[in-house]
Amino acid sequence: MDSESKRMTVVELAALAGGRVVGDGQVLIGRVASLEGAEAGAISFVEEGKFLEGARASRASCLLVPEGTGESVAAGEFAATLVEVARPKLAFALIAEVLHAPSRRAGAIHPTAFVAESARIEEDVFIGAGVCVGERVRIGRGTQVLAGVVIEEGAEVGAACVLHPNVVLYGGVRLGSRVVLHAGVVVGADGFGYVRDAAGYHKFPQVGTVVIEDDVEIGANSCVDRGALGETRIGRGTKLDNLVHVGHNVEIGERVVIAAQTGISGSTVIESDAVIGGQVGMGDHARVQAGAIVGSKAGILPGKIVRAGAVVWGVPVRPLDEYKRLNAHFGRLPQMRAELDELKRQVRELTARLAETPEAGQPGEK
Amino acid sequence: MDSESKRMTVVELAALAGGRVVGDGQVLIGRVASLEGAEAGAISFVEEGKFLEGARASRASCLLVPEGTGESVAAGEFAATLVEVARPKLAFALIAEVLHAPSRRAGAIHPTAFVAESARIEEDVFIGAGVCVGERVRIGRGTQVLAGVVIEEGAEVGAACVLHPNVVLYGGVRLGSRVVLHAGVVVGADGFGYVRDAAGYHKFPQVGTVVIEDDVEIGANSCVDRGALGETRIGRGTKLDNLVHVGHNVEIGERVVIAAQTGISGSTVIESDAVIGGQVGMGDHARVQAGAIVGSKAGILPGKIVRAGAVVWGVPVRPLDEYKRLNAHFGRLPQMRAELDELKRQVRELTARLAETPEAGQPGEK
Amino acid sequence: MDSESKRMTVVELAALAGGRVVGDGQVLIGRVASLEGAEAGAISFVEEGKFLEGARASRASCLLVPEGTGESVAAGEFAATLVEVARPKLAFALIAEVLHAPSRRAGAIHPTAFVAESARIEEDVFIGAGVCVGERVRIGRGTQVLAGVVIEEGAEVGAACVLHPNVVLYGGVRLGSRVVLHAGVVVGADGFGYVRDAAGYHKFPQVGTVVIEDDVEIGANSCVDRGALGETRIGRGTKLDNLVHVGHNVEIGERVVIAAQTGISGSTVIESDAVIGGQVGMGDHARVQAGAIVGSKAGILPGKIVRAGAVVWGVPVRPLDEYKRLNAHFGRLPQMRAELDELKRQVRELTARLAETPEAGQPGEK
Repeated sequence: MDSESKRMTVVELAALAGGRVVGDGQVLIGRVASLEGAEAGAISFVEEGKFLEGARASRASCLLVPEGTGESVAAGEFAATLVEVARPKLAFALIAEVLHAPSRRAGAIHPTAFVAESARIEEDVFIGAGVCVGERVRIGRGTQVLAGVVIEEGAEVGAACVLHPNVVLYGGVRLGSRVVLHAGVVVGADGFGYVRDAAGYHKFPQVGTVVIEDDVEIGANSCVDRGALGETRIGRGTKLDNLVHVGHNVEIGERVVIAAQTGISGSTVIESDAVIGGQVGMGDHARVQAGAIVGSKAGILPGKIVRAGAVVWGVPVRPLDEYKRLNAHFGRLPQMRAELDELKRQVRELTARLAETPEAGQPGEK
Repeated sequence: MDSESKRMTVVELAALAGGRVVGDGQVLIGRVASLEGAEAGAISFVEEGKFLEGARASRASCLLVPEGTGESVAAGEFAATLVEVARPKLAFALIAEVLHAPSRRAGAIHPTAFVAESARIEEDVFIGAGVCVGERVRIGRGTQVLAGVVIEEGAEVGAACVLHPNVVLYGGVRLGSRVVLHAGVVVGADGFGYVRDAAGYHKFPQVGTVVIEDDVEIGANSCVDRGALGETRIGRGTKLDNLVHVGHNVEIGERVVIAAQTGISGSTVIESDAVIGGQVGMGDHARVQAGAIVGSKAGILPGKIVRAGAVVWGVPVRPLDEYKRLNAHFGRLPQMRAELDELKRQVRELTARLAETPEAGQPGEK
Repeated sequence: MDSESKRMTVVELAALAGGRVVGDGQVLIGRVASLEGAEAGAISFVEEGKFLEGARASRASCLLVPEGTGESVAAGEFAATLVEVARPKLAFALIAEVLHAPSRRAGAIHPTAFVAESARIEEDVFIGAGVCVGERVRIGRGTQVLAGVVIEEGAEVGAACVLHPNVVLYGGVRLGSRVVLHAGVVVGADGFGYVRDAAGYHKFPQVGTVVIEDDVEIGANSCVDRGALGETRIGRGTKLDNLVHVGHNVEIGERVVIAAQTGISGSTVIESDAVIGGQVGMGDHARVQAGAIVGSKAGILPGKIVRAGAVVWGVPVRPLDEYKRLNAHFGRLPQMRAELDELKRQVRELTARLAETPEAGQPGEK
């Protein structure tokens, strides 16, 4: 989203990040930038001391640098003011949150929006063009519902959320506060469950709901299905990338990160602090325990448990070191084949020689 | 979608499922629930006799149980009324269809919708907020067109369909009756076909159409492209999950099930009753014959034929038992490597010994 | 999209494609068709001479045929007029562009659309039902903005573009001319970048933009994220299929083709004229050099470079011939296992025999 930016002094920014200023603290900073893209008035960062040298050419007015490196470079080598911080990239992110706070529309309901009479809209809520808010919907204070969003009957949206254009919330789903749903996200569509008989497929009831907790962000065009009978839940602070599929009754813990195009089948559990790569596929009723890391394109079989803290890879998943070892062996299959052929030749030769040895080669001897 | 529920007696429900009541048939049931989630007034099910024991703690007022198990548990072990049926899960689905019939809006055209004058809308059609219905569109009786849907010129929608919010039908596509398209589904976008010359890519004409037959359901944000010259077709009773891609001129038979994020390239055919897992990729001009099962994440090469009833897996696909065997061998590659090395050592030793054997080891003997 | 068709003589069409007419050049042609689907008034094509025989049954009124084949078939074997061209399929595409020019709505702003006062809309722009155009947006001459599209503040759209229904452009993104975005495409959502601390994830600033150059076409429900600090760029003439994910700061060259459901992680570069299959996954900071071909379902590790013109396949990618060889070895693992077991048996036997040979088998000899 387009963002407004304001100007602050280096001293003010350093305070946000708990940093120590080396140089002119009154320089005004208006925006964040990469080292290469920075112009006067921008702040950038140097993640590790070894990259300091390369940062000299940057035109940034302020650089966030690792602790203990400020003095060494203070001797006139940098035109920029420096701010020493423990984690420059983190400090950069925290400062950007303030310098580039997402633009917020003031509370208003666009004349082309439709809001049902029974909907309960709190203060300072923005409802954009063409939005449709159904019966008994509740929307919390300060939330931004951008153009084209559809919120069906009975859904609840917490405070300070941002629903980007064309998001769809099916009936009855519940969002916490500060949830960000990017354009085209669909929350609460029917899960994929059918029972077959001779005539074809009957829908297994998909009458549960979805709960998305505080501070969750979901990427564009991702889909989170409602529970069949219970609920699908995404825990506080979890982040999903674009085009992710979350099946019915999936339970995702807190602070989980899931990269683009990953798909999670029904009733699977991902515990807190797990990190899931892109294009991963998870069968149903699987479990990724706390803090586990699943590599991109991995495949997790139904019912499989990935142990807490494990790092797994491949289809089906294996521990990363095993995966690497197997992959190396795989790459050397032609060599293994050649060695095997050579061995066969040698053994044939040995056998032939032994047959010529009177004492060893007699038939009937074994 | 949010659903209304009504209350019915166990006797009425048992009649729907062809079941036999054991216990009080006049108990009123208002909703379906899981065994654990059930409260008084709910009906749940026990899929197999061996799970009966575990169902005792459920607070459901009625349980669907396998035939022949009702008597054994009738002796006061269950507070719930039991209904014996041949297939409890199927019975549960059929009962849920009645207890939780999808909420239907009465026929009406929302004041914020735009409907072209030449469109032909039959009786009892609901057209929601912000919907756009183009010229010469036809919509059959009882169909629900929810908020934000766009139906372009000349498209035809049958009776009793549900188009969830923000669905897009491109011009001229045709839907049968009782088709359900979840939010964000796109039907009829151009297929992906180009012809290259020195200047770049020219679009191969994408002037065909899409036909979706009766009782098809398609998951959120899935895409079905129009035929290049002919048509793309999805057969009666077929079910697609979320984020599925169906390329131009694909032909999908009846009662096919396709899980999330699978992609089907142009002109590929999937015959009736096939079951396709999630994240499967199919090359163009492939064919999956009737009743075949394709495992999740499988890759089918262009032109490949998967035989009727086969169960295939892997990239590229192989019969499941072969896939499993190969995968097991793959996992034991380090052991095979070690065995090969040990054999090489032994053969070297044998060769050395034989060289010391006067009768066998003479050079020039072979 | 539905298309209007007009009627032209074979002579006129032949002129478009630089072809030579064999037969009646005054026949009127109204549409393109496949050989099988053609009726009178249609033009079709025969890609190679060897398919000429099979084309005899077609009812097309005109056939595009390879150079040098017209005479051989002119002797009354074809009822159709023939047009000899160097590349029949290309000629067919060029002719279709004229016969089936996409239907264009005349310049107009639909009464249900909302256009901000500060937006600058050039001549002959169509803005459909329910469209929302934000502050300071610019839209070039002749562009078609179809129903339900949302263009946020400050975004720029060139001339003669087509934004299909429900496309979303986030603030500040820029499109060149003749760009086609299919329904549900999202351009400019936040990239997926976070910095973790003890409390959870903080968003790394996503304040860059997206630039899509002239003549790009993007398939339905695809997502192109904005740059974190710089820009994400898609080069002139590049074509993306449905449900493709393009991460932040990705740079795609000119005339690149990317099939459905492929995902490209942040800061990866795809140089001009590359061809990328479907369901490919690319790690961050990778590079696919000019003209390389990446097979469907391939996985490219972060930082990996695929050399110019290379053809790669597999997870992780390898040169295609190596991939094929390894895959063949993989398929013969059971046989290799059996051979190894047989060798072990033979070596055991040799060892036993040798032990019986007095001169060779004495313990302590080695």
